[in-house]
Amino acid sequence: MSNTFGTALRVTTCGESHGPGIGAVIDGCPPGLKLAESDIQAQLDRRRPGQSALTTSREEADRVVIQSGVLDGVTLGTPLSLFIASGDARPGDYAKLERIPRPSHADYAYRAKYGIQARSGGGRASARETAARVAAGAVAEKLLRESYGVRIVAWVSAVGEIDGAELDFARVNDWTREQVDSSPVRCPDPAASAAMVAAIGQAKQDQDSLGGVVSCACSGVPAGWGEPVFDKLEARLGQAMLSIPAAKGVEIGSGFAGARRRGSEHNDLFVGKGGQLGTVTNNSGGTLGGISSGEPVLFRVAFKPPSTIGKKQQTADYDGKPVTLQAGGRHDPCVVPRAVPIVEAMAALVLADLALRQRMVR
Amino acid sequence: MSNTFGTALRVTTCGESHGPGIGAVIDGCPPGLKLAESDIQAQLDRRRPGQSALTTSREEADRVVIQSGVLDGVTLGTPLSLFIASGDARPGDYAKLERIPRPSHADYAYRAKYGIQARSGGGRASARETAARVAAGAVAEKLLRESYGVRIVAWVSAVGEIDGAELDFARVNDWTREQVDSSPVRCPDPAASAAMVAAIGQAKQDQDSLGGVVSCACSGVPAGWGEPVFDKLEARLGQAMLSIPAAKGVEIGSGFAGARRRGSEHNDLFVGKGGQLGTVTNNSGGTLGGISSGEPVLFRVAFKPPSTIGKKQQTADYDGKPVTLQAGGRHDPCVVPRAVPIVEAMAALVLADLALRQRMVR
Amino acid sequence: MSNTFGTALRVTTCGESHGPGIGAVIDGCPPGLKLAESDIQAQLDRRRPGQSALTTSREEADRVVIQSGVLDGVTLGTPLSLFIASGDARPGDYAKLERIPRPSHADYAYRAKYGIQARSGGGRASARETAARVAAGAVAEKLLRESYGVRIVAWVSAVGEIDGAELDFARVNDWTREQVDSSPVRCPDPAASAAMVAAIGQAKQDQDSLGGVVSCACSGVPAGWGEPVFDKLEARLGQAMLSIPAAKGVEIGSGFAGARRRGSEHNDLFVGKGGQLGTVTNNSGGTLGGISSGEPVLFRVAFKPPSTIGKKQQTADYDGKPVTLQAGGRHDPCVVPRAVPIVEAMAALVLADLALRQRMVR
Amino acid sequence: MSNTFGTALRVTTCGESHGPGIGAVIDGCPPGLKLAESDIQAQLDRRRPGQSALTTSREEADRVVIQSGVLDGVTLGTPLSLFIASGDARPGDYAKLERIPRPSHADYAYRAKYGIQARSGGGRASARETAARVAAGAVAEKLLRESYGVRIVAWVSAVGEIDGAELDFARVNDWTREQVDSSPVRCPDPAASAAMVAAIGQAKQDQDSLGGVVSCACSGVPAGWGEPVFDKLEARLGQAMLSIPAAKGVEIGSGFAGARRRGSEHNDLFVGKGGQLGTVTNNSGGTLGGISSGEPVLFRVAFKPPSTIGKKQQTADYDGKPVTLQAGGRHDPCVVPRAVPIVEAMAALVLADLALRQRMVR
Repeated sequence: MSNTFGTALRVTTCGESHGPGIGAVIDGCPPGLKLAESDIQAQLDRRRPGQSALTTSREEADRVVIQSGVLDGVTLGTPLSLFIASGDARPGDYAKLERIPRPSHADYAYRAKYGIQARSGGGRASARETAARVAAGAVAEKLLRESYGVRIVAWVSAVGEIDGAELDFARVNDWTREQVDSSPVRCPDPAASAAMVAAIGQAKQDQDSLGGVVSCACSGVPAGWGEPVFDKLEARLGQAMLSIPAAKGVEIGSGFAGARRRGSEHNDLFVGKGGQLGTVTNNSGGTLGGISSGEPVLFRVAFKPPSTIGKKQQTADYDGKPVTLQAGGRHDPCVVPRAVPIVEAMAALVLADLALRQRMVR
Repeated sequence: MSNTFGTALRVTTCGESHGPGIGAVIDGCPPGLKLAESDIQAQLDRRRPGQSALTTSREEADRVVIQSGVLDGVTLGTPLSLFIASGDARPGDYAKLERIPRPSHADYAYRAKYGIQARSGGGRASARETAARVAAGAVAEKLLRESYGVRIVAWVSAVGEIDGAELDFARVNDWTREQVDSSPVRCPDPAASAAMVAAIGQAKQDQDSLGGVVSCACSGVPAGWGEPVFDKLEARLGQAMLSIPAAKGVEIGSGFAGARRRGSEHNDLFVGKGGQLGTVTNNSGGTLGGISSGEPVLFRVAFKPPSTIGKKQQTADYDGKPVTLQAGGRHDPCVVPRAVPIVEAMAALVLADLALRQRMVR
Repeated sequence: MSNTFGTALRVTTCGESHGPGIGAVIDGCPPGLKLAESDIQAQLDRRRPGQSALTTSREEADRVVIQSGVLDGVTLGTPLSLFIASGDARPGDYAKLERIPRPSHADYAYRAKYGIQARSGGGRASARETAARVAAGAVAEKLLRESYGVRIVAWVSAVGEIDGAELDFARVNDWTREQVDSSPVRCPDPAASAAMVAAIGQAKQDQDSLGGVVSCACSGVPAGWGEPVFDKLEARLGQAMLSIPAAKGVEIGSGFAGARRRGSEHNDLFVGKGGQLGTVTNNSGGTLGGISSGEPVLFRVAFKPPSTIGKKQQTADYDGKPVTLQAGGRHDPCVVPRAVPIVEAMAALVLADLALRQRMVR
Repeated sequence: MSNTFGTALRVTTCGESHGPGIGAVIDGCPPGLKLAESDIQAQLDRRRPGQSALTTSREEADRVVIQSGVLDGVTLGTPLSLFIASGDARPGDYAKLERIPRPSHADYAYRAKYGIQARSGGGRASARETAARVAAGAVAEKLLRESYGVRIVAWVSAVGEIDGAELDFARVNDWTREQVDSSPVRCPDPAASAAMVAAIGQAKQDQDSLGGVVSCACSGVPAGWGEPVFDKLEARLGQAMLSIPAAKGVEIGSGFAGARRRGSEHNDLFVGKGGQLGTVTNNSGGTLGGISSGEPVLFRVAFKPPSTIGKKQQTADYDGKPVTLQAGGRHDPCVVPRAVPIVEAMAALVLADLALRQRMVR
């Protein structure tokens, strides 16, 4: 019952991994927005696996089709329906999962919840579901860019123990998606990028996996977006980011590091900036009292290492009987580079929703 | 438009700081729950400032009254209305705020959003609003305890640079609120507690403030709670926690530390536990694919240092003119100990909502 | 779980009859609206029973207090909390209801639903609950009048078998609430009014009750309000009106009579009107495809006769045992005159909600 | 923003007439329900035009495909996605509509709302959209039948000035869909059916159209469904029915006729029925205080005559210039027979939603 996200811009996703396809319905997109499938395809292509030697080679064509809501290249104000047909359904690969819940996977919890389980590929818990988010997010992003000039760029800031470029306001504003994508791991810090590539290669060789962190900056967000008290900007981002598979943490601005500091160091002092007020620092990450301040919105998302590994694991089957599990097939040793467009998409969905809600306020 | 939290158990709060009072309406509480004002008052008392020499002495009586939804000590299934009258409205203290936005406070963003501002005390952005959450959360907690045996305990795990007791499954299950409250800073690690008391005392003397971290463990949560894909248990916790004033980060289970690890170390292997499946470790923090696993739900919340400090700050007024601001009055140098019952309340609201939603699934 | 009405302007009501009071929280009212308790009190006074010899003499003071959301007479954009304390709780009157469900009352269904029942006065099913709607509706009406020039007037068009003034566009525009209130039964057709007074007097003498119809016209509604496909203007009105206690029917424009006609008679032909398009007739009742057309929004609501009558009734107790029931006390023989401000309030809540939602469209 | 209906069982529809297809996503359907496309197709076939000489011959194949949420013929608890591809898009037919708003059609209001308009076929305002409702309703109906034994049958009770079978509890229980469908106009009263056929034939010959009334009975609904105060059973039915294109009135039980009666005649007296309580009459239409009583839920829906007629109409273009409009092509002179499965579908969506919500109460 929670396959819908948003209040003003409402996105509903559907489709299991390995089913006929994945879909998204977007309700609330204003009329008059120029929108083509190519606007959406660009981000879908960035999410696709198999882009480099570092990731799984499983082929997903991921071609999006707009099935409703657009006429002559312009949105009508009616629901946009997006569909991405699946190419390579292989339900047979998953037969043994009916007896053994994969450690740290959703199998066990899904069975407890529903009393039944999609045999194939984790159903809705699969990363495949995120294709629908990325598609919907691309629409939200187009709306934000055309109507408000908002620009969203995410990048990999850590893989395993390797830390790359941190949240840095000055650099953030300069980076583009092209710069991010020039790194095979989407880390625009060249030295860190090289170390990450090596670490992922090693993990792959060890049949193991690595977690990491994605950072994101949203610039051009005007002051005033975010709804007190429960739909604060950071609260909406918190829900959005922690709804991404494998996300286990989120921090806004200074985050956990900020909790270690004193108020006199942490407070962002105001200063006149071209007729408006800005702040000298941006420890707040662009939000004051849950409402955007006009400074860039900055946040980071932690992803755990992928649960599917080639290494043998001593676990138990559904009856509690000890078993040794070894995943076959090829698996992504590190998904954080692919999480970059997903984080951007969810950020766009949050911001576009709050932008439309602000229209009701003033 | 976001003063309501929850889908099945819906809590709406209202009231500005220094207005006549703060209220909460709870819709969806099932009939037949024994409920008295004393069930609620206990947590409200824990939230109240002025409990020790370490916190502000401002007196708030915070007596809750149940105005509807209960007859003869039992809930009717109709909306519960809770009201907490305010005692010491002092709007005069805030006159100068009309010209100068306080750094890292909500003043500036509220004005940008609404084009108008509650003169007194930050309106809805004030911590006063959290009294309504704590009251509502106490109702949710009673429901969870009586109907499901869920037990929620939070504590302070860091103040400034001092780290106390970390997420530790074995100890978590042993701690009680009494043990937590035996520390003046609600840190059940005695050595860390003493160091935190000293650090807060120093900050107070320096007219400065300190941030910190609250950890929380929810035990007794059955497997199956949480709604894929956007209302995953961690997503709901993320929204809930980041909606608390001054919260800037949240992590579930291993969180950001888990992002540094390999899958083979991080995966929680299954093992038979008394006829059911449990896990050897709980890096997942009690959630698999967004659904509770039956293991304790564990998370941490980072709070920035309070923005109101006695120290002089070089900032700007609304016209961009440089000004020196020095807050008068007495202010909390560290609010994390008081955040403990607020975190517990929001956790209870999340869990009770998901518990009721699961009733619709099976 | 359905004590909230609206999407953009969200009203949550609470309080049982004979409890300490009735409340409403309004979330989403834009900032900057001038609002005083007197704006609300006027409509509450019109709803109050005991205004004429024709209605029950039970005294309800019904003084509204604004508890939040307003500062210096202007809305802040934060939730408005309204409270109406109850004066004359008399739970003792209802003791016998614990054994016998009153025919056509909510008693039986409430017990089936909740397994428990508010002993006193029907709880949420009592007409007392409508005080909160009227209060909230008065706020919505102020917003509609100030921001859009919308004007809402309802009146009694039938009592029992006596039909009064029908939906008549020309006359509708001329009527005011003062004209409506000049009739003791709120029927602005003098001949029908006199006949209705006599009929109600006769029913009272017979210890019986009478149903009736309330008509309503909303003028000044601009074209474009209403949300396809499920929140069409008429669909929202349908829900709103049929949520009023004792309402059993609603029709928009020509309604059931229109179903008897041919398209060539029924279609509203367009005509230029001062630079805009209007229609020659208004059989559509001001809505085309669920969206307001710019013509007045016209609808009628049917109310069944009050279920509480002094006459003896042969019914059964909860065990199915035949019993004779005779209601004591004084009861309204006809509630339709009092329903007039309730219908206006619900119409205002529908229109204000759709007005705000349209701000998100263009 | 209102293309979603329901709270627990949430249906979102999308697709314009003459676009590639019409879709529905159903969120909240419990796991474990046996569901095949044939369960849905049966009702879709009943909605399809071109079934008899009386209706338009336009061919719509209307084959539904289940795209997600079902595995091995059983629902998974994940969103069900239904898609109905369109066969015969003919946008060219509608070119002239860009200058002239059709009288009593949605054209004018849509343009006012969106500032843009689907050139072809009325977009979302077209009856084509109801195919998605019928498909989704068939799923809800299956759930109601399998889990609760609810049975829903609607029929035509009036066409133009001809009244057929009225709401009659005794007969209602006996009728089946087969009996209803044995009449070419779906009126199970043979004499009235014949008169209706003749009247529709005459209207067709006159290039005119006729309105009518659909009645519906839902038996097997247990006591306790319906949510006070705004989502009363009749309120939800009111919204659902008035969201159907061309619906202009709805009444529950005795409806407008009941408003003419006295309480002593209208009250439904209780009587023991096989260990439970029932009522001697059912003027309430199966709902007390907005909650189902255990008696059959009975209601009627008024439909205006179709706005598209072959007769010439003197109207105005968007500039206000007088024009004569004459619709080409073939049009349904009376749509009420086709409305029967749509009314059943919306009733099923209302009841299934309230059934699931009741699971949260007790």
